[in-house]
Amino acid sequence: METFEHQFEEQVVVIGVGLIGGSVAAAVRQRFPGCAVIGVGRSADRLSAAQRAGLLTGWTTQVTPELLRKRSIVVVCLPVDLIADQVCQVAAMAPENLLITDAGSVKGSICCEIDRDATARRFFVGAHPIAGGEQGGFEYAEANLFEGRVCVVVEAADQTRTARLRRFWEGIGCQIVSMTAEDHDRTLALTSHLPHVMAAVTTAVVGKRNLALTGSGFRDATRIAAGDAALWKGILSGNRDAVAAAIEAAEQVLAQYRVALEEGNDECVHSLLAAAAECRSELSP
Amino acid sequence: METFEHQFEEQVVVIGVGLIGGSVAAAVRQRFPGCAVIGVGRSADRLSAAQRAGLLTGWTTQVTPELLRKRSIVVVCLPVDLIADQVCQVAAMAPENLLITDAGSVKGSICCEIDRDATARRFFVGAHPIAGGEQGGFEYAEANLFEGRVCVVVEAADQTRTARLRRFWEGIGCQIVSMTAEDHDRTLALTSHLPHVMAAVTTAVVGKRNLALTGSGFRDATRIAAGDAALWKGILSGNRDAVAAAIEAAEQVLAQYRVALEEGNDECVHSLLAAAAECRSELSP
Repeated sequence: METFEHQFEEQVVVIGVGLIGGSVAAAVRQRFPGCAVIGVGRSADRLSAAQRAGLLTGWTTQVTPELLRKRSIVVVCLPVDLIADQVCQVAAMAPENLLITDAGSVKGSICCEIDRDATARRFFVGAHPIAGGEQGGFEYAEANLFEGRVCVVVEAADQTRTARLRRFWEGIGCQIVSMTAEDHDRTLALTSHLPHVMAAVTTAVVGKRNLALTGSGFRDATRIAAGDAALWKGILSGNRDAVAAAIEAAEQVLAQYRVALEEGNDECVHSLLAAAAECRSELSP
Repeated sequence: METFEHQFEEQVVVIGVGLIGGSVAAAVRQRFPGCAVIGVGRSADRLSAAQRAGLLTGWTTQVTPELLRKRSIVVVCLPVDLIADQVCQVAAMAPENLLITDAGSVKGSICCEIDRDATARRFFVGAHPIAGGEQGGFEYAEANLFEGRVCVVVEAADQTRTARLRRFWEGIGCQIVSMTAEDHDRTLALTSHLPHVMAAVTTAVVGKRNLALTGSGFRDATRIAAGDAALWKGILSGNRDAVAAAIEAAEQVLAQYRVALEEGNDECVHSLLAAAAECRSELSP
């Protein structure tokens, strides 16, 4: 086993080779051709297809101690409600120099569960690269998905592992932002989980029978609502309190619009719209 | 003055040469090169730039009886709160064969105001081509903006003019859907006005300080919130009751999500998300 520091990992083990896991694999393959990239999943057919697509140097349906002999980082890219369990399983067979991370959209519930396992806690540093798409599956993976995107890293007590993790995500293109799990979840409830709920609510209120009279505005505003329901159920319920608070805030602003319209207070309607337009215009279209 | 029916108009007068008016002009120029396209607006500089851009065959800052001597259709592409007034002004100098229409996103308040003017009522048939973008100005005009898009036509008592109007919008690429003004407004409150409010609310709740942690989902879901606040104030207040009802429906569904999360009813969260995803998947991404 090597004891000196590498510039990058010798081997990246991606558990869950979907859009995110596949893109992690693709990014590593493109930027670090010398690094082994092993996919782990349930379906041999899918994994072998991902290897043929050039994303993996190898694959297995089972993580074993032998697999982890090389200096490795394990990136758990599963739905959020399966991450902590998987981290604990891998940690139970981890060699001393292993680093385990994840790409889950919630951090509090995951870090909390992992913290209760003294072994897992030693090896794990949580992360969340803010990148994705509505469509799942490694077929949509892109080597540059993380290019310039923010990756939140939840600083662990082990500063060496935290630094190593930062180098990993930076290595595949991310800009690192350090946050506590609580701050991450409160912020992402607003910036990611609430928009998903709002898109789903808009879709539900419009309903199928009115789709013919929708335009590009509706299509943009509700695109994310087509995302996988089971995945998003896990995210929302994994960040229950912060999402409920974000929804309540949205209900309050909606009521402001409704009351202003009902009362004929068009100046209020205008100032609400103008503030939102000004805020939104700080981002690219 | 000609008395026989033409296949298309001799002249199209576009009042308000912005994104929509400019695209009407561009579409007519491309498809009916023999048809005169006259722009009307306040700024001679802007109109002359639009003519140089190839959108217009001529322009004026003032509609006069002389301008309307040719068999013409006047398309009023102003913000919704200015349309009825403009229609009445043009109608006051209209020759017998004039046809006036609009492209406003609300129909009830506009048609109601025009109906009170016996002259305007004779010449006007309301329309709403469901097409657009966040960015205003003829610089963003596209000749194919209406290609395959639905244009709602509010059937007028004058069936000859209604048929002529249908031919006009079909001529520049639209599919016609006939609706009453009330049905149009109730439906568009859901399919267009509510999505705008939801996008603005999401933006407001997220706020500037959290923009750095947004991703492509937020960008898509809130793109329309960057739209012109004064324009949208006019649309929302021009369709006050239906928009307030749509907002109330959205508040109710939001509360369902919040309560389900607060009570730990993850099955309910899942079924709400699954229904929305199924509905949205009926549209292209």
